Amino acid sequence: MAKPEPKLDAEGVNALLRRAFPQAPEQGFPRVLAVEPGRVRLASSYRPDMLRPGGVIAGPTLMSLADTAAYALVLAHIGDRLMTVTSQLNMSFLRGARPGELQAEAEMLRLGRRLAVCDVRIWTESPERLAAQANVTYALPE
Amino acid sequence: MAKPEPKLDAEGVNALLRRAFPQAPEQGFPRVLAVEPGRVRLASSYRPDMLRPGGVIAGPTLMSLADTAAYALVLAHIGDRLMTVTSQLNMSFLRGARPGELQAEAEMLRLGRRLAVCDVRIWTESPERLAAQANVTYALPE
Amino acid sequence: MAKPEPKLDAEGVNALLRRAFPQAPEQGFPRVLAVEPGRVRLASSYRPDMLRPGGVIAGPTLMSLADTAAYALVLAHIGDRLMTVTSQLNMSFLRGARPGELQAEAEMLRLGRRLAVCDVRIWTESPERLAAQANVTYALPE
Amino acid sequence: MAKPEPKLDAEGVNALLRRAFPQAPEQGFPRVLAVEPGRVRLASSYRPDMLRPGGVIAGPTLMSLADTAAYALVLAHIGDRLMTVTSQLNMSFLRGARPGELQAEAEMLRLGRRLAVCDVRIWTESPERLAAQANVTYALPE
Repeated sequence: MAKPEPKLDAEGVNALLRRAFPQAPEQGFPRVLAVEPGRVRLASSYRPDMLRPGGVIAGPTLMSLADTAAYALVLAHIGDRLMTVTSQLNMSFLRGARPGELQAEAEMLRLGRRLAVCDVRIWTESPERLAAQANVTYALPE
Repeated sequence: MAKPEPKLDAEGVNALLRRAFPQAPEQGFPRVLAVEPGRVRLASSYRPDMLRPGGVIAGPTLMSLADTAAYALVLAHIGDRLMTVTSQLNMSFLRGARPGELQAEAEMLRLGRRLAVCDVRIWTESPERLAAQANVTYALPE
Repeated sequence: MAKPEPKLDAEGVNALLRRAFPQAPEQGFPRVLAVEPGRVRLASSYRPDMLRPGGVIAGPTLMSLADTAAYALVLAHIGDRLMTVTSQLNMSFLRGARPGELQAEAEMLRLGRRLAVCDVRIWTESPERLAAQANVTYALPE
Repeated sequence: MAKPEPKLDAEGVNALLRRAFPQAPEQGFPRVLAVEPGRVRLASSYRPDMLRPGGVIAGPTLMSLADTAAYALVLAHIGDRLMTVTSQLNMSFLRGARPGELQAEAEMLRLGRRLAVCDVRIWTESPERLAAQANVTYALPE
């Protein structure tokens, strides 16, 4: 009952993301796999240029995915209002992300009138071995 | 498999908490209800002096509970090593916490050799209506 | 030029804080020492019950002071609108705070129409030896 | 007295950064301008592909710069130990960053034995109009 009802399905959110980032390369761009009440699931295919020294996926790649996952979650629940912007992103790097397809799950902690607060978890190997967790706040358009 | 195995049960963690905070008043002090692999559940009984103007539970009460919940989670998994200390606490206040028994659930995101990173969620009404979410990092003793 | 002009002086902010927290004990309650454009300075006198095991000042005492310092900074710049609420508080505990008068300095990073973002630094020994740093976001009333 | 003494100058840190990121394009790669006790200053030249819809610089570009600024600050003070890794990055987006050369200033809040905690501020127009502020924690090699 308390979970917010999505306004868009995965295909609808993917179309919005492509519209918001028209110049992004297809390869490695996150795609929404599933939308549920208060929750979305995304994946990004792996590209070798995501690696940093030490053989793990670079922090900025993970932060960018966390931001896009939260954006997708917000769009899924507020619909076609692209001008929502990140106001805060707090990320914990938990362990090196081994090369592989990046998975992200984003959960809506609170969808208010002015702010949306999202929990995002990212992994490559297994959801039991998270690479990173983020708390992302979006300021909603008025 | 990847979930860390607890070393203490709820009773064991409660005994450690009482030892760490000998002067804390019984009323309103968090007590551990359950310990599972990578997870603990706590509750604090409500005291009227927890309220702030507006009739909701004060932020510092929630931050203190988040910190204690993460501490309990860490102790449950590393045992009797009280000198672990908080190195970071990031809290999102999601909605006003109505007066009532405070509930907290803490989940281990990563138990490393030097740092433990915990996700904590706090509510009074229902876990579907979170009052606050926190990411708490503890530095472990060597 | 870009720094926000205060609407209240230290005495004015202290009067508002006393009104917001009528039941707080005099001893240990933060008092505003100075207000400047985009900045406030506070101090709290030391009370032995602020200590935790290890002989340092407890984390919740520091978090509470950070929250009050940011609140004082916001009130100094928006005036008598007490219903502004904390939406996020991110604190780094940098070193154990030795017993002594607590000092806090809060700086406005951004005073927007809907959110105020504040940097807060806390110490007892010296501002060169910070005990904690916090980033505190307040949601402003409409 | 309490401020940590740098081990490297700007040129020395730039050489380490080029070694750590051999594949990064010259254009837009952050370069260290100045190193002082507990502080570094960096700049990145602007590239049109840093923009996002709305005509402001993309969040991931700012997060990546904050991470590199903190890395440069840490290397300046611990010397040639490239394997230090980010453990937490908390960023507040304060206002849209207008197109222009990116400036970053990083300040060491605490250089401990195991963790370094840095405050980073980023702007294009003026340091009085910050685009973003970050708190970045690095785990130091043993």
